Amino acid sequence: MSTRGALFDPVFGATLVSEHLSDQAWVTALLDVEAALSCAAATIGLADGNQCAAVAAAAAELSKPGGLDIVALGRASASGGNPVIPLVKILRERVAQDGIPGNVVHPGATSQDIMDSALMLLTRRAGSVVLADLTWAADSAAHLARLHRSTPMVARTLGQQALPTTFGLLATSWFTALDAAANRLETVLSTLPVQFGGAAGTLAASYPNGLALADALADELGLARQLVPWHTDRVTIAELATTLGIVAGAVSKPATDITVMASTELSEVAEKTPGGSSAMPHKQNPVAAVTARAAARRVPALVATALSNMDHEFARAAGPWHAEWETVTDLLRLAGGAAHQLCVSLAGLQVHTDSMAHNLDITGGLILAERVTKALSAHTDRARDIVTAAAASGTRLDRDPAITEHLTAAELTELLDPAQYLGHATDLVDRALAARPTGGPR
Amino acid sequence: MSTRGALFDPVFGATLVSEHLSDQAWVTALLDVEAALSCAAATIGLADGNQCAAVAAAAAELSKPGGLDIVALGRASASGGNPVIPLVKILRERVAQDGIPGNVVHPGATSQDIMDSALMLLTRRAGSVVLADLTWAADSAAHLARLHRSTPMVARTLGQQALPTTFGLLATSWFTALDAAANRLETVLSTLPVQFGGAAGTLAASYPNGLALADALADELGLARQLVPWHTDRVTIAELATTLGIVAGAVSKPATDITVMASTELSEVAEKTPGGSSAMPHKQNPVAAVTARAAARRVPALVATALSNMDHEFARAAGPWHAEWETVTDLLRLAGGAAHQLCVSLAGLQVHTDSMAHNLDITGGLILAERVTKALSAHTDRARDIVTAAAASGTRLDRDPAITEHLTAAELTELLDPAQYLGHATDLVDRALAARPTGGPR
Amino acid sequence: MSTRGALFDPVFGATLVSEHLSDQAWVTALLDVEAALSCAAATIGLADGNQCAAVAAAAAELSKPGGLDIVALGRASASGGNPVIPLVKILRERVAQDGIPGNVVHPGATSQDIMDSALMLLTRRAGSVVLADLTWAADSAAHLARLHRSTPMVARTLGQQALPTTFGLLATSWFTALDAAANRLETVLSTLPVQFGGAAGTLAASYPNGLALADALADELGLARQLVPWHTDRVTIAELATTLGIVAGAVSKPATDITVMASTELSEVAEKTPGGSSAMPHKQNPVAAVTARAAARRVPALVATALSNMDHEFARAAGPWHAEWETVTDLLRLAGGAAHQLCVSLAGLQVHTDSMAHNLDITGGLILAERVTKALSAHTDRARDIVTAAAASGTRLDRDPAITEHLTAAELTELLDPAQYLGHATDLVDRALAARPTGGPR
Amino acid sequence: MSTRGALFDPVFGATLVSEHLSDQAWVTALLDVEAALSCAAATIGLADGNQCAAVAAAAAELSKPGGLDIVALGRASASGGNPVIPLVKILRERVAQDGIPGNVVHPGATSQDIMDSALMLLTRRAGSVVLADLTWAADSAAHLARLHRSTPMVARTLGQQALPTTFGLLATSWFTALDAAANRLETVLSTLPVQFGGAAGTLAASYPNGLALADALADELGLARQLVPWHTDRVTIAELATTLGIVAGAVSKPATDITVMASTELSEVAEKTPGGSSAMPHKQNPVAAVTARAAARRVPALVATALSNMDHEFARAAGPWHAEWETVTDLLRLAGGAAHQLCVSLAGLQVHTDSMAHNLDITGGLILAERVTKALSAHTDRARDIVTAAAASGTRLDRDPAITEHLTAAELTELLDPAQYLGHATDLVDRALAARPTGGPR
Repeated sequence: MSTRGALFDPVFGATLVSEHLSDQAWVTALLDVEAALSCAAATIGLADGNQCAAVAAAAAELSKPGGLDIVALGRASASGGNPVIPLVKILRERVAQDGIPGNVVHPGATSQDIMDSALMLLTRRAGSVVLADLTWAADSAAHLARLHRSTPMVARTLGQQALPTTFGLLATSWFTALDAAANRLETVLSTLPVQFGGAAGTLAASYPNGLALADALADELGLARQLVPWHTDRVTIAELATTLGIVAGAVSKPATDITVMASTELSEVAEKTPGGSSAMPHKQNPVAAVTARAAARRVPALVATALSNMDHEFARAAGPWHAEWETVTDLLRLAGGAAHQLCVSLAGLQVHTDSMAHNLDITGGLILAERVTKALSAHTDRARDIVTAAAASGTRLDRDPAITEHLTAAELTELLDPAQYLGHATDLVDRALAARPTGGPR
Repeated sequence: MSTRGALFDPVFGATLVSEHLSDQAWVTALLDVEAALSCAAATIGLADGNQCAAVAAAAAELSKPGGLDIVALGRASASGGNPVIPLVKILRERVAQDGIPGNVVHPGATSQDIMDSALMLLTRRAGSVVLADLTWAADSAAHLARLHRSTPMVARTLGQQALPTTFGLLATSWFTALDAAANRLETVLSTLPVQFGGAAGTLAASYPNGLALADALADELGLARQLVPWHTDRVTIAELATTLGIVAGAVSKPATDITVMASTELSEVAEKTPGGSSAMPHKQNPVAAVTARAAARRVPALVATALSNMDHEFARAAGPWHAEWETVTDLLRLAGGAAHQLCVSLAGLQVHTDSMAHNLDITGGLILAERVTKALSAHTDRARDIVTAAAASGTRLDRDPAITEHLTAAELTELLDPAQYLGHATDLVDRALAARPTGGPR
Repeated sequence: MSTRGALFDPVFGATLVSEHLSDQAWVTALLDVEAALSCAAATIGLADGNQCAAVAAAAAELSKPGGLDIVALGRASASGGNPVIPLVKILRERVAQDGIPGNVVHPGATSQDIMDSALMLLTRRAGSVVLADLTWAADSAAHLARLHRSTPMVARTLGQQALPTTFGLLATSWFTALDAAANRLETVLSTLPVQFGGAAGTLAASYPNGLALADALADELGLARQLVPWHTDRVTIAELATTLGIVAGAVSKPATDITVMASTELSEVAEKTPGGSSAMPHKQNPVAAVTARAAARRVPALVATALSNMDHEFARAAGPWHAEWETVTDLLRLAGGAAHQLCVSLAGLQVHTDSMAHNLDITGGLILAERVTKALSAHTDRARDIVTAAAASGTRLDRDPAITEHLTAAELTELLDPAQYLGHATDLVDRALAARPTGGPR
Repeated sequence: MSTRGALFDPVFGATLVSEHLSDQAWVTALLDVEAALSCAAATIGLADGNQCAAVAAAAAELSKPGGLDIVALGRASASGGNPVIPLVKILRERVAQDGIPGNVVHPGATSQDIMDSALMLLTRRAGSVVLADLTWAADSAAHLARLHRSTPMVARTLGQQALPTTFGLLATSWFTALDAAANRLETVLSTLPVQFGGAAGTLAASYPNGLALADALADELGLARQLVPWHTDRVTIAELATTLGIVAGAVSKPATDITVMASTELSEVAEKTPGGSSAMPHKQNPVAAVTARAAARRVPALVATALSNMDHEFARAAGPWHAEWETVTDLLRLAGGAAHQLCVSLAGLQVHTDSMAHNLDITGGLILAERVTKALSAHTDRARDIVTAAAASGTRLDRDPAITEHLTAAELTELLDPAQYLGHATDLVDRALAARPTGGPR
C-alpha cells in the first residue's frame, strides 16, 4: 500500500512512460538480462541450449505480473544493497526444480552487470516513448510554423512588445530545439551498451571466455557491445542524463510561451481542452502546458545529481552507483512526461490570430517606431525626437500632428502595418523547415 | 502495475517513511483536510454537526485501503492538474447519498488549500519518522563519543595521516551536526501551517467568515494557524526543503567516514551485519553506510529544485507549485532513508580499537613528528632537519641514530605515544556531550 | 588583467556587496584573523602586548590596497591548496623585521582555522549589506501593501484571470517572504562562529590553552565562540547557504510579478527608470526586476553545491572544503545582488491603478461569475448554466438577456464591482502589516 | 579593488583558462564581434572597406589593456542590463572622430547578437585550453595504462578489497572517460555558431540583407553559420554546459582514485610535488588531485543552472538569458581548472608497485578465495565452508590446515598469486588503447 505513481504520474504526463520504469519493469528487465546471459553462455558453448531455454522460461514466468513477490524481493534487497542478489537466488531455486545447476544462472557476472544492463533496457523501452512524444511535439510545432509562417504577432523582449514577428517564427524556435533534443536522444538510445565485467571488472570469473560472453550478451539483448566494462566510467549515464536535461529544456520554452500566450490578457492561444472551474467558467487553464513546465522544472537538478555521481571510486562506487538508479528513471519519467504534456498542449492548439492582431495594435504603432522614424527622417532632422515624444505622451503615431504634418495617412497606414515589417521572418521559417529530416512538418 | 516504491525503498532505508508518502497516504491526507474543513465550518456555525459527522465518516471510508480507486483518481486528475477536483466530486457524491448538500464539502476552498494542507499533514507524519531516526542516530553517535572519548585513532587530513585524535572526537563531529539538523527539523515540524485562502487568496468565498474558518481548520488538523494564506509565499516549503538538505548533509559525513573506516586497509569499524558475497567471503560491505550515502547524495539537487520553484507568480503559479509535490515527498523519503540507514549502520557498529592502534603506528612515529621535533630542539638546533630527513628516508623516529643520540628510548616511547598528544580531544568530547539537550547520550 | 567582477557585478546589483567579497577583501580578512590570533594569544598570556601590536600593525599594512602582491600570493597558494600557508610566511617575514619570532604568528592554528574564520568575517561584512537591502525591499513592499491595501486588481491563477484581489494583498505576499528571509539571515549573521581547532581539530598545538585561545580569538573578532571546532561539521556553512537560497527565492517572486505586470499588455507597474532603447522608444524594460530574477535564478544550484559538500571526511576534507570558498562568496554576491536589484525596482515603482482597473474589466465581468451566479440563483435554478453560456459566448454579463431578465442594471453594477468582492483582502494586509517587527512599513 | 580571480584561480588550476574569461577578455570579444560585424557589412556591400578598417582599428585600440575603463563600462551597463549598449556608444564616438557615421557600427544588430557571439568566441578560446588539458590528461592516463597494464593491484568494490586487477585497467577507466569527454568537447567547440537576429530575431533592421550579413559575420569570426537565430533556442548553450559537466565528471573519477591511493594507509601513488607541512614532514598531500576534485564538484550544479535557464520566453528572456553569462564562464573555468589540476597530478605521478603488492597480500589470500574454493572443490564438497571459515577466523588460506590438507604449498602459492587471476585485465587495457584515436598513448 505504500507504492506511488498512480496518483501523480497522469498529472505530469507520465502514465505511459512510467509503465517502463515501474518496479515490475525493473524486475522484468533484470530477469531479461539474467535469461540473456544464460543463453549467451549457451551461444558460446558454456552452457547447453536446454539450460538456456529453462532459464528463459523461468525468467519469463517470474516476470509475469504476480510471478514474483516484489515487496518481498525489495525487503530482501536491503541487506546486500541491490535486488540482484536475492533475485538470482530465486531464479536459481526455480531452475533447480528443472535440474539446472546454479552456476548456469548469472555466470561470471556481478550485480552491477545485471543492474546496469537492465537500466539500459529500461532506458531503451522508456526512451522510445519519450522520443516518440518529442518527435510528435516537434512535428506539431513545425506544422504550426508552416501554417503561421506569415501570421503577424508581437515579438516580446524582456516582457515588452518590441517589433512584429510571425507566430511561425516563434514556433520555429520551438521545433528547432525539439528536433535537436530528439536527435540527441535518438543517438543515445541507439548506442546504449551492455555491461559485463564480473566482480572486479576483469572478467576473471569468465576467463578466457569473458570477451566473447560480453559480446554474446549484448547481441542477445540487442544492446551495443561494450568496448570495455564501464562499471566506473559513467559517461554513458551522464550522456543519457544530460540529453534528458536538454529534452526537458527544449520542452520548457514552448510550454512557457503557451502558458503566457493563453493568459486572459494576451489570449493568443488556447489549449483544446483547457482545465476549467465550475465556479469560474471563464478560466481556460492551459493545464497541459502548465504541467509540462512543472515536470520540466524538476529535471535540471536530477541532471546535476547524475553528474555529481560520476566519481565512482576504484572498481565499484560506494554510493554514487546506487544513487543513479532512481535518478535515471526519474529523468526518463519527468522529461518524458513533460514531452507528453507538450504534445497534449499542442494537439489542436487554438491560435487566435485576431488576438495577435489586436495585440499588435495596442501600442498605437509604437512597435513600428523604428520604421516610422526612418521614414520621417526624410522630412525632418527631428524625427527621433518627435517619435520619442509621441511614445512618452502615449499618442498614436498616426494621430500625432508632428508626424501627420510630414507623412500622409496612406503612408502611415503602410508604415504601421506590422505585416510590412517582418524582415526575414518567413525566410527563416522556410529555412528551418527545409533543414528538418523530413524536409518540413510531417 | 506501474507503481514503484516496493523494490528500492528498502534499499535506501525508506520503507517506513514511505508509508506516509504513498499514493494512499496522499489520498488519506487530502480527505483528512476535506473532512476537517467541513467540521471546521460546523465549529464556527456554517454547517451543522451532523453534516460534519457525515463528511468525516465518508472521508474515513474512502481513506481505507481500497476505499477509492486511486488509479482512476489519478487519471481524472490530469485534466485539472491536481487530484482535488475529482476527489471533491467523489466526496460530494458520497455524502449526497446521506442527503448532505454539495456545498458542505470544500466550502470556500481552492484546490491549493487542500493540497498544501495535505502536504503539511504528510510532512508531519513522515517527518516524525525522519526525526526519530535522526535523533536515534545522534544518540548513537553520542554514545560512541562517550565510550571512545579517549580511544586514540589517527586524524586524517586530505587523506593523509596527520596527528592523533580520538575516535570519540570524530564521533563528536557526527553528533553535533546530527543534533543541529534534528533541532531544525523539530522546529520546522512543530510550526507547519494550515493553508486556507480560497480561489484567489482573498477568502472571498468564505467572507466574512474566512479568517475564523481558516483558524478552525488549523485547529481541527492540529496544524499551526496561518498569519495569512501562503499560496505564493513559499518560505514554508523552502524551510522544510533546506532543513531536509541539512539533515542529509549531516548524515552523509558519518556515513562517508564509516565507509572508509570499514575499508579492508583501515578496518577500524565494521557494521554489525555487513553485506557479504558468497564468492568473496572476506567482503564486509558496509551496506547501510553505503546506501545512506547514496540516498543523501540525491538530496541537495532536490533542495535546489524546491528553491528554484519559489517564484510563484501572482496568485497561483503555473508550474512551480505543481513541481513541489513530489519534490517535497522525495526529500522526506530520501533524507529519511539516509537517516534510517545511518541508524542501521551505527546500531552495533563494531569498533576495532586494535586496528586504530595499528594504524597509528604505521608511519613509524611520524604523526608525532611535531612533538618529537619540539623535544629534540632542546638538544640540537638541527631538530627539524633531522626529523624531516627521517621522514624522507622512511626511518622510524625511534630508530634514527640522529634522534636516539639525543633522546633515550624511554623518552621516545613517551613522545611517540599517541595517547600523550591528544590535546583537548577529551575536553571537546565532554563539552559537546554536556551541551546536548539530554546532557549526553541517552 | 585576468580578473573579473568589474564588468558584470553592476548588472547584477552586486557592486557594493562585492567589495566585501573580493580578493582584497579575502586577504584583509585572513590578515584580520591572524592579527586577532596573535593578540588573543597575548590576551591569555601566551604572547606579550608588543608582539600583538607588531603583528596587528604588519597585518594592517599588508591589508592596504597594494600592501601585498595578490597575484603572487595566488600563485604561491597553488602548491599547498590555500593562501594561508604563503600568507603566514609573508607575515612572519614582515614581523621578523621587528624582531618578533615566527611562532607568535599563527600560534596553534591550521590553515582551515584561518580560512573558515575569515569566511565568517567576509560573511558578516557582506551579509550586512545583503540584509540591509533585503530589509529595505521588505519595507518598500510593506509600504506598497499599505498604500494599496484596497486597490483592486486582478488575481491571476495559472496565468488566467480568476477573481479580484488588491494590489496590497499581492504586495503582502512579497513582504511576508522577504521578512521571513531577512529574519533568518539576521539570525545566521548574528551567530557566525569562530573556527579554531589546530591541525587535527584537537587543539594539540595550543594545549592546554586551546579552549581559552579559541574563545579569546572569537572575542577579538567579534564572532560567536565555538562549542567545539567545526572543521568537518558544516552545518554552519549549510545554514548560511540555505538561508541565502531562501533570500533569493523571496526576491524572485516579486521580481517575476513586477516583470510581468510591467509587460506592455498588462502595464500595471513601471520601474522608475526602466531600460530603454533609442530605436524602440516605447520599450520600458524593467531591467532591475529582470536582473534581480537573473541573479536569483543562479542561487539554488549553488545551495545544492554547498549541501553536497557537507560530507567532510575525517578531520579535513579532500575537496569538499575547498569547494566551499567561492560557493559561499558567490551565494552572498548573487543573493545580495538580487536583493539590491529588487530595491532598485521597488524604489519609486509606478503603480498604474487605471491599468489595474482596466484589466479587471476585460472579461466583461466574468471574473465575478461566481458572485453573479450566486445572486442569480435566487431567481432561477439555471443560474450556473446561464453564466457558463455567457462565458462561452463571450457575452458581457451585464448585457446577457438571460441575466438582465432577472437582475437589474443597478444590481449588476454592484455585483460586477470588483471592489465589492475582495473578501478579506484588506483584513489580510492589515494583519500581515501588524505582525511586522515594526508594526507596519517603516 | 573589488575584483576577484587572482587569489583563487591558481588554486583551482584556472590561471590560464581564466585569462580567456576575464572582464578584459569579455570586452575584447565584444569588440571583436562589433568590428567583424562592420567588416561583414563591408563584405556584402553595405559599408565600405575604409569604414571596416576604421572600426576594426578603433576596436583593437579599445581592446588593449587600459584601452577602455572597464569599471566605468560596468557601471554604465547596469541601466540597460548588459554592456553592449554603452560599448556601442563608446565605439561610435571613437570612430566618429574618423568621420565614420554611427550606423556603420552595430548595423542591424541587437545586444544579444553581440553578447551571444562574444560568448562563443570566449568559449572557443577558453575551450581550447580546456581541451588541451583534457587531452593531455587522457594521454597521461593512457600512458599509465600501457605501462602498468599487468601491474597487479587490488580491485576495491564498495571500499572493500574484492579481487586482483591491474593498475593499467584502473587507468583505462580513467582515459576512456577522459577521451569521451574530450571528443564531445572537441565537437562542441568546432560547431559554435554565430548569433545574428536583430531586435526581434527577424533580421528586420538588416532586411533584405540579413541572411547574407549573418553568414558574413560568421565567416569573419570563424564561427559556424547559424541556421536561424537562436536567441531563445538555447540548445547550443545547453550542449556546451552539459559537455563541460561531463568533462568535470570524467576528471573527478581519477582525481578521487588518486586522492585515496595517495592516502597514508594505501600509499599506492604519490604526486610528484605533493603539498607538505613543515610541522608534519610525513604529509604528502595530493594537492593537485584534491583541488581537481574541489573544482569538479562545483560543476554539476552550474549545469543545472544552465539547463533550468532554457525556458527563454518569447523573443528574449527576462532573466534566463542574463543568467547564462557567468554560468557559462564559470563552467569553463572550473571544468578547465579541474582538468588542469588532473594534469598536474598525473604529471610524474609516482606509482608504488611495492605498496600495491603489499596491499594485495593483507587479506592473507582471501581476495583469491573464489579461486581457492574452485580448486578445493576438486577435493572436497566442503570447499566453500572451509574457505568461509578461514575468512571468518582471519586465518591465511595457505596456513589453514583444512586447506593445506588438500592443496600443496606449491599449488597454494600459485593459486594465491594475484598475477595469475587477472582475467582479461590486460586484454581490456589493450583493447581500449587500440581504440584510441592515436592507437594508444601519445
